[in-house]
Amino acid sequence: MKLRFFLLAASLAALVSGSARAQVAYDQIVHSSRQPENWVTYGGDYSGSRYSQLQQVNTTNVSRLAPAWVFQTQLAGKFETTPLVINGIMYFTGPDDHGYALDARTGRAIWRYERNLPAKIPACCGRVNRGFAALGDLLFMATLDAHVVALDAKTGNLVWDVEAADYKLGYTFTVAPLAVKDKVIVGISGGEYGIRGFIDAYDAATGKRAWRFYTVPGPHEAGNETWAGDSWSRGGAPAWVTGTFDPNLNLIYWGTGNPAPSDDVSERAGDNLYSNSVVALDADTGKLKWHFQFTPADAHDWDATEVPVLVDLNLDGRARKLLAFANRNGFFYLLDRATGKFLLAKPYSRVTWASEVGPDGRPRLLPAAAESKDGTVVCPAAAGATNWMSPSFSTQTGLLYVSVREQCDLFVGIPQAFHPGHPYIGSVYFKPADERPWGALRALDPLTGQIKWEFKYVSAPWAGVLSTAGGLVFSGDMEGYFIAFDARLGKELWHFGTGAPVYTSPITYALDSKQYIVITSGGALFNFALVQ
Amino acid sequence: MKLRFFLLAASLAALVSGSARAQVAYDQIVHSSRQPENWVTYGGDYSGSRYSQLQQVNTTNVSRLAPAWVFQTQLAGKFETTPLVINGIMYFTGPDDHGYALDARTGRAIWRYERNLPAKIPACCGRVNRGFAALGDLLFMATLDAHVVALDAKTGNLVWDVEAADYKLGYTFTVAPLAVKDKVIVGISGGEYGIRGFIDAYDAATGKRAWRFYTVPGPHEAGNETWAGDSWSRGGAPAWVTGTFDPNLNLIYWGTGNPAPSDDVSERAGDNLYSNSVVALDADTGKLKWHFQFTPADAHDWDATEVPVLVDLNLDGRARKLLAFANRNGFFYLLDRATGKFLLAKPYSRVTWASEVGPDGRPRLLPAAAESKDGTVVCPAAAGATNWMSPSFSTQTGLLYVSVREQCDLFVGIPQAFHPGHPYIGSVYFKPADERPWGALRALDPLTGQIKWEFKYVSAPWAGVLSTAGGLVFSGDMEGYFIAFDARLGKELWHFGTGAPVYTSPITYALDSKQYIVITSGGALFNFALVQ
Repeated sequence: MKLRFFLLAASLAALVSGSARAQVAYDQIVHSSRQPENWVTYGGDYSGSRYSQLQQVNTTNVSRLAPAWVFQTQLAGKFETTPLVINGIMYFTGPDDHGYALDARTGRAIWRYERNLPAKIPACCGRVNRGFAALGDLLFMATLDAHVVALDAKTGNLVWDVEAADYKLGYTFTVAPLAVKDKVIVGISGGEYGIRGFIDAYDAATGKRAWRFYTVPGPHEAGNETWAGDSWSRGGAPAWVTGTFDPNLNLIYWGTGNPAPSDDVSERAGDNLYSNSVVALDADTGKLKWHFQFTPADAHDWDATEVPVLVDLNLDGRARKLLAFANRNGFFYLLDRATGKFLLAKPYSRVTWASEVGPDGRPRLLPAAAESKDGTVVCPAAAGATNWMSPSFSTQTGLLYVSVREQCDLFVGIPQAFHPGHPYIGSVYFKPADERPWGALRALDPLTGQIKWEFKYVSAPWAGVLSTAGGLVFSGDMEGYFIAFDARLGKELWHFGTGAPVYTSPITYALDSKQYIVITSGGALFNFALVQ
Repeated sequence: MKLRFFLLAASLAALVSGSARAQVAYDQIVHSSRQPENWVTYGGDYSGSRYSQLQQVNTTNVSRLAPAWVFQTQLAGKFETTPLVINGIMYFTGPDDHGYALDARTGRAIWRYERNLPAKIPACCGRVNRGFAALGDLLFMATLDAHVVALDAKTGNLVWDVEAADYKLGYTFTVAPLAVKDKVIVGISGGEYGIRGFIDAYDAATGKRAWRFYTVPGPHEAGNETWAGDSWSRGGAPAWVTGTFDPNLNLIYWGTGNPAPSDDVSERAGDNLYSNSVVALDADTGKLKWHFQFTPADAHDWDATEVPVLVDLNLDGRARKLLAFANRNGFFYLLDRATGKFLLAKPYSRVTWASEVGPDGRPRLLPAAAESKDGTVVCPAAAGATNWMSPSFSTQTGLLYVSVREQCDLFVGIPQAFHPGHPYIGSVYFKPADERPWGALRALDPLTGQIKWEFKYVSAPWAGVLSTAGGLVFSGDMEGYFIAFDARLGKELWHFGTGAPVYTSPITYALDSKQYIVITSGGALFNFALVQ
């Protein structure tokens, strides 16, 4: 009869002892693979691999996986969060900048945070948040009203709050910050509102801005010549998905979004640097080391805000520091991450707009994709061959697992005047009449771009991927299934119906010698473990 | 790689074959205990026992219970529904009169129903719905805008729609209808708006009203003399929880709510029949056979809208048809259900307002509970010692399991004028400063009212109860735990954290030789089975 009281006491104990345990040193993030019981940063590690050394759950026993507990926000909005787990406490964000700390054993809430948001925020694509970053005793959240805040990890209390930009002009944050050394890195959202994109670093202790990198160069800066007239000033190129970091090269890698207006190039003749690019920035200064643009002068909303996954592999007999990038434009790219040198591009989905990517790294456009008065059907669709959902790279299999959307759109240009704080898109998309979007989880060999296996989905997916040393890959579909695959063969080994589309990326952690696997879906966070 | 497609095909097959299988004959409901694989009516059977003969899940293996699938409404409102399961299809309702049919194997939706509700509905206590009734090929829903509708069980399409009352005057439905013979019985909500309560029967095939029983007698009717002046005309006494039915006696038993204004007796001197009563109505005519009033002239909002559970037991050496009623006023009652004769009353929670219930069935009031200018602390609180959540009676143990709320309120009278369609309450309640509400699941011997065991909850619960032939009792708490107890001993054998308060009553069913147990919580419906 006392179990309820006991559990309450256990939660309180976790709360009290959290003080000493919630610390996350920079060095712990650098060496996160040595402590797979925690999930200390958005991508699981700085490389964005989302690969875990945990192997208690493996190909032989995954059929016994079942929810151990569930947490519900009881809000109507949806999750896109990646939870962090630090010494038995789980930290994650929900819709409308809600934050939660749970006892990772039981799912009991330790604290909740709710931001008092302005009533009207011009946010194009859902009032979502993709998660916290952690450093020291603090958690960092980038908010819909374009602030960056630090919370006390023990209490959820606000420690500092700085405004990065004016949300009334269309600047918003949905990104999970990236904590690097003593700084917190964030990228802005708002490409559909004609903002001028940037990536910011803030001092983790004080919230003072350490540097800003504008993703659209200003007058007299290199790259500004790739924008006609003053189009740079409303050029978009947001940076709304968390980047990666190489501690040895001291470089941050971050994907940038489409130029604004997203589908009307007439006003912004030129390549529109550094839109639709990956930029490599010095972690201390924010200075650009190199950039690579995937889709020059983009007309299809193909933000390159996918995760730049850092992989160390032998290429042509030589150990190389590489960057693997499955791009929204339908091509998979391999770059040298020290120099930005283009090494390889290969389609990993249906592509009708370019025949190939040339040795110069530029796409060879196909006439079929040219704009026309009645609109043009182009594959991939505006939502892309993939999107913000994270891929995963398994060091065990050497494969990159990507959620792929097989979908085309009819793009119809509708030139649009710019009004600050209002949508600035320049087109509409339609689903072509004969279109039946579908999708797949695909395993790519990053050295060749070759598809090693695929698992077909009924619908085009929005879920990220986790791979583990248990020989498993986890992802989800729009029919609400959370699925475990054999990482080598792509065979489905287990699935669970979560009852709502799976919109986010799984993680794993361990506690009390038990491995847990977490996915959010709808308004619920599901935590799975083996049933004895 | 084909499993997703296979599952889709399976759902479609279930949909197509649903035509022949969705039939629910009246006789099937009468003999529901013979087919425990289904859950054909709100209370599991006409007696309201919520006891299932299924025993695959039992005291020895319940530790291996885990969610098999989950369904999410993705709505902000909460569930209070009892799902029905009929030959592998699950039918249930959600907030704002949403309805769902799922493949009970996988949780995949077959159809969804959404009622186009008026923008403003004066609903006092949440835009909830407690479930469908099923009869033939139809499902019946009582709606927030005071209509009764019939849906085609195969498609969710509307078959008929009748207005029972004017929602603008405060008449609403939240009740799950009860299908009896060829009729659908519903009880109105709105006691807080000074409505005149009623219980209605509609022809199941056409929606034509067959009879109406006003829970407040009109002028020249017996009982009208228990209301001062014209107070009967705004007398409340709603009937918002599904009643029970004895096919042999042909009597429907239904609990009635508080008189209006709920906490101000000054305007309505008298006993206020048939408020806070159980009424026994002829199923064919709606004529009153007998009534028993638990709380005459109620001043504490103690609706008697609990479930009148019909139990057949030996009393004093004689087989008796009894009615067991754990009342919101803190007393458990045993009545003869053929005659309404009062047999027993005993407190099953803390009671400060009456010393006992006399042999005449009337409470002996305590002076401490009398109204005073500065308010009076009374136990139970306005929310009662229990409430709408269903108890369960196990024929295996002979015990009645009741979710009990241990809570007191400070009642302060504030006389209020009557304005149709506006709240008409006449008081406010406060939580006394030293009050720490808690609760328990209690097992009562219905023949003596004695508490055989209790399991304490941290908070006052809102969850109903299920008992099974597996020797188990299931219920839930406000901390979000769904819990299995040993039915004989009250020992907790298993629990699962659902991540939101459990507000409703569990059910069980079987499919493909597998027993499932269902509970809703927050925005999610959880379906549990044993993990192999």
